[in-house]
Amino acid sequence: MATVAPIDRNVLERARARQEQLTKPPGSLGRLEDAGVRLAAIQGVEKPVLGKGAVVVAAADHGVTIEGVSAYPAEVTPQMVQNFLAGGAAINQIARVAGAEVYVLDVGVNGPEFPAHERLIAARVRSGTGNIAREAAMSPAEALAALQAGENAARRAISEGATLLAAGDMGIGNTTAAAALTAALLDLPPDAVTGSGTGVDGDAYQRKVAVVGRALERARAELGDLTRADPLELAAQLGGLEILAAAGVLLAGASAGLPVVTDGFPVSAGALLASRLEPHLTEYLFAGHRSLEPGHARQLEALGLEPLLDLELRLGEGTGAVLAFPVLRAAAAILSGMATFAEAGVSEA
Amino acid sequence: MATVAPIDRNVLERARARQEQLTKPPGSLGRLEDAGVRLAAIQGVEKPVLGKGAVVVAAADHGVTIEGVSAYPAEVTPQMVQNFLAGGAAINQIARVAGAEVYVLDVGVNGPEFPAHERLIAARVRSGTGNIAREAAMSPAEALAALQAGENAARRAISEGATLLAAGDMGIGNTTAAAALTAALLDLPPDAVTGSGTGVDGDAYQRKVAVVGRALERARAELGDLTRADPLELAAQLGGLEILAAAGVLLAGASAGLPVVTDGFPVSAGALLASRLEPHLTEYLFAGHRSLEPGHARQLEALGLEPLLDLELRLGEGTGAVLAFPVLRAAAAILSGMATFAEAGVSEA
Repeated sequence: MATVAPIDRNVLERARARQEQLTKPPGSLGRLEDAGVRLAAIQGVEKPVLGKGAVVVAAADHGVTIEGVSAYPAEVTPQMVQNFLAGGAAINQIARVAGAEVYVLDVGVNGPEFPAHERLIAARVRSGTGNIAREAAMSPAEALAALQAGENAARRAISEGATLLAAGDMGIGNTTAAAALTAALLDLPPDAVTGSGTGVDGDAYQRKVAVVGRALERARAELGDLTRADPLELAAQLGGLEILAAAGVLLAGASAGLPVVTDGFPVSAGALLASRLEPHLTEYLFAGHRSLEPGHARQLEALGLEPLLDLELRLGEGTGAVLAFPVLRAAAAILSGMATFAEAGVSEA
Repeated sequence: MATVAPIDRNVLERARARQEQLTKPPGSLGRLEDAGVRLAAIQGVEKPVLGKGAVVVAAADHGVTIEGVSAYPAEVTPQMVQNFLAGGAAINQIARVAGAEVYVLDVGVNGPEFPAHERLIAARVRSGTGNIAREAAMSPAEALAALQAGENAARRAISEGATLLAAGDMGIGNTTAAAALTAALLDLPPDAVTGSGTGVDGDAYQRKVAVVGRALERARAELGDLTRADPLELAAQLGGLEILAAAGVLLAGASAGLPVVTDGFPVSAGALLASRLEPHLTEYLFAGHRSLEPGHARQLEALGLEPLLDLELRLGEGTGAVLAFPVLRAAAAILSGMATFAEAGVSEA
């Protein structure tokens, strides 16, 4: 598994000192300023440069859909994988305008294998998870394999030129798994982290909360105090495969010295998990956006991150992460390209 | 002066119907969905496309700086114009990563004329405004000329390929003029719209509030009830030249059928003024970001706009407007490039 070193605090301080000399009132570029100095420290240079980005959209199915927790049928997962490969999904369009390549990682879709495609990374660990209300999502060995599939996908994206990396998710039922995993990691009750997902409400929402509660009880019976459980054993109990893959994408990206961007609720569950495995991950991590899922705010709080965007998205696929790429590029460009007061001959306050 | 026609409501409804058929849960792309259908209606096509953008940074000086309302000396205005032309300012870097050309419009800088430069539009109406605490900023004829200078700059940007247009501002002292104009247009007291600008506080801030109050009293003595005053006469009293030019940029952009993006407090004062002249302007207008200036929220409320970004910027130059260009491109690309459920063979909820 990838290890993540601390970012360079010396560079961070030097970049902050440079930021204060640039031709603008101090602090007037707001959150772009902190983002810029962190990008410098991640890259280990005072003048950070971000080029092409990439998003790994990890797809997998969830046995728990049999409990009626989603507004959409499970068959939508493989259908959407085909849509990603054909370029017809939201993430394809957003990636195009935001300068990012899309890699689709089949880490556990249920159904026939997909035909080979240049954008498809076929690394199916198993055909969907078990129904977490009644059984473990997967074995700990499968959890590790799913995480490593994400790491390998990230390494391919980096070898093909990515300088900025996001994780995305596709998996009908995955906000249920993300809710269970987040509740376990943050010691929160099911209703604090369960949202409407793709659009459940009323009785279906109550059913979803109850399913998350049953999954947590079952995991507690297996592992004891969940706040002290081994992160991979916990993920093996609660899933999902794409959440583990997202964790792997973020870990491998940070391990290679890239800024990594988290998306909505399922990917941020992966980020939380990854940060338990490698605590320095959060130094490389940016929150692309604030999702409408109520548990997302709790995850970001635990990760110590403020989201860059707040556009009321709740789609997943990496859309909210990739949409923030231009903001991060701007933060880097400001620090690397702006003149100082002295260089430009501009009077100071 | 440019006239602005209503956007196409038929196209808006057809685009909204198409939006609901795209392969995503209804509403899951949040504010990108409304932005997309409005872009369709602005362009008059169901599948809007945004290419290259441009920002016109209008620069001018303010006689009111003699009252000690700014943290920076007035000489910074021409120095920053040189910095824009040399590519060393924040707007240059943000424009580069966000796919926008920068045009620098000298509509009223005080000091020697600038040497010719391919990015400079020299259209100085006068060398800075009068001190609005004691005298009119300019004559009504000069106000019209400043507005028309903005219109002409926008037309040049459009003729050179801009499909998306922002206005930016540079002018030491301009948040004082913007506060006075906003207070007059929205019938608000000086302290509701006066902020710290580039960084005044304590006594200097109180002085700034008092100066805004004196300017309003003087304008009232000249024009009577300011809420009923002719917008150009009001702007002639309170300024500034770059605020009028920004109004012209937005009017000419909308008149040509382009989406136009407002920046922070001074540019949004121009947007308010322009919307009084041509009420349909707001249908073409997007708020790039929410500035930290307290009066900006009041302006956006009056314009009926929700800002796309909220990154705590307070720089001006068009930075917060241009940073939103990729978000608008994404909104257009979603509508024009995504597959429908039927096209992609994806099951619906």
